[in-house]
Amino acid sequence: MAKQEKQALQQVAGNGLLSRRHLLGLGLSGAGLAASHSLVAQESGVVFSIPQWSRQPGPGSSPYGSPSPHASHIQRMSGNPNPTYPGGGASRSPLQYLQGSITPNSLHFERHHAGVPAIDPAGHKLVINGLVRQPLAFSYEDLLRYPMVSRIHFLECSGNSGAMLRSATADSGATAQSIHGLVSCAEWTGVPLSALLEEAGVLDQASWVAAVGADAASMGRSLPLSKALDDVMIALYQNGEPIRPEQGYPMRLFVPGWEGNISVKWLTQLKLLDEAAQFRDETSKYTDTLADRSSLQFTFPMGVKSLITSPSGQMQLNNPGVYEISGLAWSGHGSITRVEISADGGRSWADAELQSQVHDRALTRFRLPWQWRGSDAILQSRAHDSRGNVQPTRASILAARGNIATYHNNGIQSWSVNSTGELRNVYA
Amino acid sequence: MAKQEKQALQQVAGNGLLSRRHLLGLGLSGAGLAASHSLVAQESGVVFSIPQWSRQPGPGSSPYGSPSPHASHIQRMSGNPNPTYPGGGASRSPLQYLQGSITPNSLHFERHHAGVPAIDPAGHKLVINGLVRQPLAFSYEDLLRYPMVSRIHFLECSGNSGAMLRSATADSGATAQSIHGLVSCAEWTGVPLSALLEEAGVLDQASWVAAVGADAASMGRSLPLSKALDDVMIALYQNGEPIRPEQGYPMRLFVPGWEGNISVKWLTQLKLLDEAAQFRDETSKYTDTLADRSSLQFTFPMGVKSLITSPSGQMQLNNPGVYEISGLAWSGHGSITRVEISADGGRSWADAELQSQVHDRALTRFRLPWQWRGSDAILQSRAHDSRGNVQPTRASILAARGNIATYHNNGIQSWSVNSTGELRNVYA
Repeated sequence: MAKQEKQALQQVAGNGLLSRRHLLGLGLSGAGLAASHSLVAQESGVVFSIPQWSRQPGPGSSPYGSPSPHASHIQRMSGNPNPTYPGGGASRSPLQYLQGSITPNSLHFERHHAGVPAIDPAGHKLVINGLVRQPLAFSYEDLLRYPMVSRIHFLECSGNSGAMLRSATADSGATAQSIHGLVSCAEWTGVPLSALLEEAGVLDQASWVAAVGADAASMGRSLPLSKALDDVMIALYQNGEPIRPEQGYPMRLFVPGWEGNISVKWLTQLKLLDEAAQFRDETSKYTDTLADRSSLQFTFPMGVKSLITSPSGQMQLNNPGVYEISGLAWSGHGSITRVEISADGGRSWADAELQSQVHDRALTRFRLPWQWRGSDAILQSRAHDSRGNVQPTRASILAARGNIATYHNNGIQSWSVNSTGELRNVYA
Repeated sequence: MAKQEKQALQQVAGNGLLSRRHLLGLGLSGAGLAASHSLVAQESGVVFSIPQWSRQPGPGSSPYGSPSPHASHIQRMSGNPNPTYPGGGASRSPLQYLQGSITPNSLHFERHHAGVPAIDPAGHKLVINGLVRQPLAFSYEDLLRYPMVSRIHFLECSGNSGAMLRSATADSGATAQSIHGLVSCAEWTGVPLSALLEEAGVLDQASWVAAVGADAASMGRSLPLSKALDDVMIALYQNGEPIRPEQGYPMRLFVPGWEGNISVKWLTQLKLLDEAAQFRDETSKYTDTLADRSSLQFTFPMGVKSLITSPSGQMQLNNPGVYEISGLAWSGHGSITRVEISADGGRSWADAELQSQVHDRALTRFRLPWQWRGSDAILQSRAHDSRGNVQPTRASILAARGNIATYHNNGIQSWSVNSTGELRNVYA
């Protein structure tokens, strides 16, 4: 240990960001973490008591498992129900408690416009009609027989992180979950929409597909035909099992890389049109209002974005020492190629390591060691994607769009650390 | 439709296996599936009634989601409890009901030797001792601060599919779950063991790591040091959330590609030794008994293997027509490079398409269209891996090892289809 502790820590950017070579091998042992946090057990000395759970057999197998009661604080966060908007609202993934890149189905974010319909798949139909040679209706059982494809993709509500644009002062009590929790990632399996459209026979004059859900809001969105024929699927499975009711059981549209709202849940109709349908959900909502009160419409792809999840808002660093900075990056335009981290509010940057396997339009976990010396710091991350896009600052988004925008905020998140180790959401 | 129906189906192997070009684009529409299974909806004709679930708002968001009640048959399958082996046994993943490559945490297979201990992480320690410079003990909180890595890997019990070796006659009532359900796949996130061993300082004479769990069975296995320093992790998260109690909460060893039993759950001790510990669990069990009653020991990697999950045992084909054959392939030696399918009991083979994203030592989903003409068929799959290994036949395994082997069966699975469309487990 003594020899290792003498090793110099290689700093790669300001305020304590360390070289990735400290991540493995030499590890954090030489960086002071071990000394402060690993209890030394002398083999012939300390005797550990045998805990009760090791003394008698526990219960056996179960049909469908559940988390440990000690992990019961890891939950989605909902707003208060609004009596004038029954079933409406969202719940947010607890990003600061998750690791890796896959979100478990029980913790995938939700966004409902009229709550979760209790659909019996035996009574559900998907109709394809409008500008087609042959209108078709598919039962759930029909679709299960079709060829499927499986892809790992993020899904993000375009309203995610919107509070950062709406409010002039940063909510110092915010967490990664409360600001950014409307993004999740799963392996989606379903029938390529192109196969069904081919079967219906799209007429030449068609250029849009209007998708409508079976919820009481009849949530509807218009999808350009070119995208529909590209990589869109009728998703039937999420992380291996049938999609959950709150994700659209028995079937939803899944539109890789685009704002979540267009991946219409409880999908019951796809109507081929020669123009966009101009649904309520793409006029009154899900448009980007500019400073002059005009709105950008059909701004579908989600921009390149990242977020440090640990340490993050409302966390507490108890002692100076080495910490692993960890977070998530994603882009609706492609795969993540690079994530930079700053500990000094953007004055200097160092490249993080991509920790999880990198997939096209999927959450990607990054990490970098950081030596907190007990002084003030501003932690930020900045993602790059395979199309050359770079995550912008909050200030540049406000400058371009004015201050009444809500959707499509992919600005850099800043967490401040003060001398007592408290993490706070700030604008920087 | 008429024009498409005239298209010739391109057969690529005997008894109805079709070209992969029928999977997408041209789709199954030209292959008769649409005609038999998609109800034609005349736009101005058929009026669908509005289901009740579309008429009023449903309940809002939830903290931790659950499957639809209509998917409640998708469960793990356990044997009957054995009063002389309290908490012992296994539960099997419902492979025939799953899609994609990721297994949801609630349906990941289980294998317990003394049930599931109810561990409070605040009272749990991981001790590293034996032939180390500095014995160490880590709390759960300690480990959460260490650098982590995330990888998608399968886990398979070495006893999986053992019934095919043990019984001379095939169980015609078997399902994919009942024979092969002791394999699952997840994104595992944890601390590389190499980092902790580096910190403890492994002495030159050490060559094995003895791993012991905190369950009442004190389940123990020996791991060669070379593997421990390679890609083994102390897994803390599974598919994003803390690992479940039945998977070893708060921490388990995870040994990529090797038999599941060595990924010791509820991990509480790693002792560095100069030889294998010869634990009960690696002498009385988890050895491969040969015809002369000698046993192969420490046969760690799981062989290249595959399995058709749909259609599979106890399923029913209702009408002649085109079906998608779908299944899973994996190898403990590397990634899946190729899967072949036969519909005539191995006389001819055609290459399947790999449907899911391919990862090293992970489940990989494959598929191929098949035209069932209403006559007898034997469906088989044969996997190849990146190390050049090819999945063997059951007969060749029995010839090499005799008929009292149980573990490490990676033989080709055969499902028979009779003229009434019933699927049965057979030896062929």
